[in-house]
Amino acid sequence: MLYSKLFSKTAKTAPSDADSINARLLIRAGFIHKQMAGVYAFLPLGLMVLNKIQDVIREEMEKLGALEILMPALTQEESWEKSGRGKLDILYHLQGREGAKFVLNPTHEEVITPLAAQYVASYRDLPFAAFQFQDKFRDEPRAKSGLLRTREFIMKDLYSFHADKKDLIKYYNKVMRAYSRIFQRLGIGKQTILTLASGGSFSKYSHEFQTISEVGEDTIYLCEKCREGINQEVIIELNVCQRCGNQNLRPEKAVEVGNIFMLGSKFSRAFGLTYKTPEGKDELVEMGCYGIGPSRVMGVIVEMCHDEKGIIWPQAASPFGAHLLAIGREKNIYKEAEKVYRQLSEKGIDVLYDDRTEASSGEKFADADLIGIPLRIVISEKTLAKKSAEIKKRNSSKAVLLPLAKITEISDLK
Amino acid sequence: MLYSKLFSKTAKTAPSDADSINARLLIRAGFIHKQMAGVYAFLPLGLMVLNKIQDVIREEMEKLGALEILMPALTQEESWEKSGRGKLDILYHLQGREGAKFVLNPTHEEVITPLAAQYVASYRDLPFAAFQFQDKFRDEPRAKSGLLRTREFIMKDLYSFHADKKDLIKYYNKVMRAYSRIFQRLGIGKQTILTLASGGSFSKYSHEFQTISEVGEDTIYLCEKCREGINQEVIIELNVCQRCGNQNLRPEKAVEVGNIFMLGSKFSRAFGLTYKTPEGKDELVEMGCYGIGPSRVMGVIVEMCHDEKGIIWPQAASPFGAHLLAIGREKNIYKEAEKVYRQLSEKGIDVLYDDRTEASSGEKFADADLIGIPLRIVISEKTLAKKSAEIKKRNSSKAVLLPLAKITEISDLK
Repeated sequence: MLYSKLFSKTAKTAPSDADSINARLLIRAGFIHKQMAGVYAFLPLGLMVLNKIQDVIREEMEKLGALEILMPALTQEESWEKSGRGKLDILYHLQGREGAKFVLNPTHEEVITPLAAQYVASYRDLPFAAFQFQDKFRDEPRAKSGLLRTREFIMKDLYSFHADKKDLIKYYNKVMRAYSRIFQRLGIGKQTILTLASGGSFSKYSHEFQTISEVGEDTIYLCEKCREGINQEVIIELNVCQRCGNQNLRPEKAVEVGNIFMLGSKFSRAFGLTYKTPEGKDELVEMGCYGIGPSRVMGVIVEMCHDEKGIIWPQAASPFGAHLLAIGREKNIYKEAEKVYRQLSEKGIDVLYDDRTEASSGEKFADADLIGIPLRIVISEKTLAKKSAEIKKRNSSKAVLLPLAKITEISDLK
Repeated sequence: MLYSKLFSKTAKTAPSDADSINARLLIRAGFIHKQMAGVYAFLPLGLMVLNKIQDVIREEMEKLGALEILMPALTQEESWEKSGRGKLDILYHLQGREGAKFVLNPTHEEVITPLAAQYVASYRDLPFAAFQFQDKFRDEPRAKSGLLRTREFIMKDLYSFHADKKDLIKYYNKVMRAYSRIFQRLGIGKQTILTLASGGSFSKYSHEFQTISEVGEDTIYLCEKCREGINQEVIIELNVCQRCGNQNLRPEKAVEVGNIFMLGSKFSRAFGLTYKTPEGKDELVEMGCYGIGPSRVMGVIVEMCHDEKGIIWPQAASPFGAHLLAIGREKNIYKEAEKVYRQLSEKGIDVLYDDRTEASSGEKFADADLIGIPLRIVISEKTLAKKSAEIKKRNSSKAVLLPLAKITEISDLK
């Protein structure tokens, strides 16, 4: 993509109400636009990152055998009354014609359970799992920290349906491993801690994935040996590491980036989701639910991966594979840069090409650091004198020259 | 994909409240699930079709140089008051904490215009265009006809921004041609008529793409020579074909599948979207907006492309390239079918493989006709005796035998 075609320009300063690193950098670099408190638009670069994150999650969901669906945002209020969650204070309620009462879903158990009831009759129809990437709504008391706590956000929610608890537990553990892989692949695996948490009204405990960060609203107690944690909300009952018995747990601020719950039969009971056993008996379906917020993950990545100059995207989440800068005034520089741009594109490497002729080299370098694409390629009079391009990784200060004849080999650089 | 893994089962009959061909077939075949009047969930097959339709639209948008973004569903009510559209009766209003008042957007001029104002300063920043696939909400007086008139729906909305009317008109005409290609590629080009319609409060006229169908709520006057139409709402002013002067126009029922509007400066004036000319003068930006509802298009395709047995998907919108049926009881049939499934998958052909052992051949054939994948491949004792598979197109009654050794050539079949 040509930088000159990108309408979402970078800004030297962040708006005064940007209250966190991710908000400041993502707004300044032109990834997101704040519509109002807790509500953001994703600009071209931001949507690319969101899609990259979703691609990684989707791949792991498909490995779990889950099928992708898309459920609506509107639900009749009576479904929320049926499940006993109609009084949740984060629900947005609205009214349509003829007194129709709706809720804007903050999660979809109230939708998928009656939906599943239509297709599940016998034990032969189980197990199965379905997931979606969908717009969620929460009337948060305090929207804050950029993409970390918003009123409208994208959620990947996965729901699984099982004949018995044993099968649910087996799947739950598979999802746990898939979640670990997702955060690894997205570059925040090391700081993201599997954490035992309250099970809410569904079961005794659940698991969260908590990324250690000062900006976090949660406190977890970390066992440094096992790299596992316990959420403060259950630390009185569970005051040692559940894996090794370590009593020496360190409190850390953390952001919840994923959670997995065994719902058991709470919702299948409310919505009559049963199946016939081989013996012809009616049994309640056992359910699990598993969430990751891709837009929040985008914010967390920026909190984890940045320096004073800007963002440092992990390759898997980066909007482009390389950022190509043409530095200088001579036409020949732009001609050569365009050739490199074409060659890399043909090789399947996504390149953002800063083709601006009116911008100074200082502006171009600063924008590249701010936007944070992992690989920077510079074509200038100096590099062309050596028939080369200068290659620099965003997370390193070392630059190397690569002969132009070998430019398509940059994808092999490690 | 294995049919046995698909939780969304087909049904012999449609629910009694399914009021149209598309609702009946899409629900029976397991593509969509009705959540309530005018609100649907997309099941695995349905989401695949939606994605295929969106892929075609996205490709054509990118050819127009438009950049994809994603805007939120929630907007502050005051933005709608600012534009003078706060009293529209199809708006859903809702209230958040501390009296915050929101609208659920039915369209996004009120969001994108102030957003654009943040990035447009000079004539050098123009023109540009941005589009999204996003969830829209309309409090429809009557939700009806399955996916054709719903209260929540997916919309592709494109907005373009120009320095002057001349540039807007040039882009408007390019979009018009892109829309024609989209409907052609999606298999409803012949019945979809470029139609002159009212410009609402924005400009004198706009253009709609109207698909001729008995289920349509609009009436257009068709010139059969030019295959162009005039919407009934403007037929008093424009009572002859605008292209050839033909006075003999035939009234036809039609469904609006796309519309393109010159907004002019209506919204740029309301939100202060101006730019500096080369002479340093402030001018209002000229805007255009262009919509297609992919979910409605999905419904229209089914209205156009079906027979008494089920759907007949055009290739570009089909959830799979081929539907493979293993017919019979012997294990060998399933072994051979699985081999074909693997070979085709490796060749990059998406196959739905009906691997059910408990279903009768009658059920399998009926489900294949109902689901409507354009190419059917049958492996049975009879075909295996001839070391072949039976190939039949959904829109033809003629079946041919293809040697198993040549099975990967089916993609070349025309």
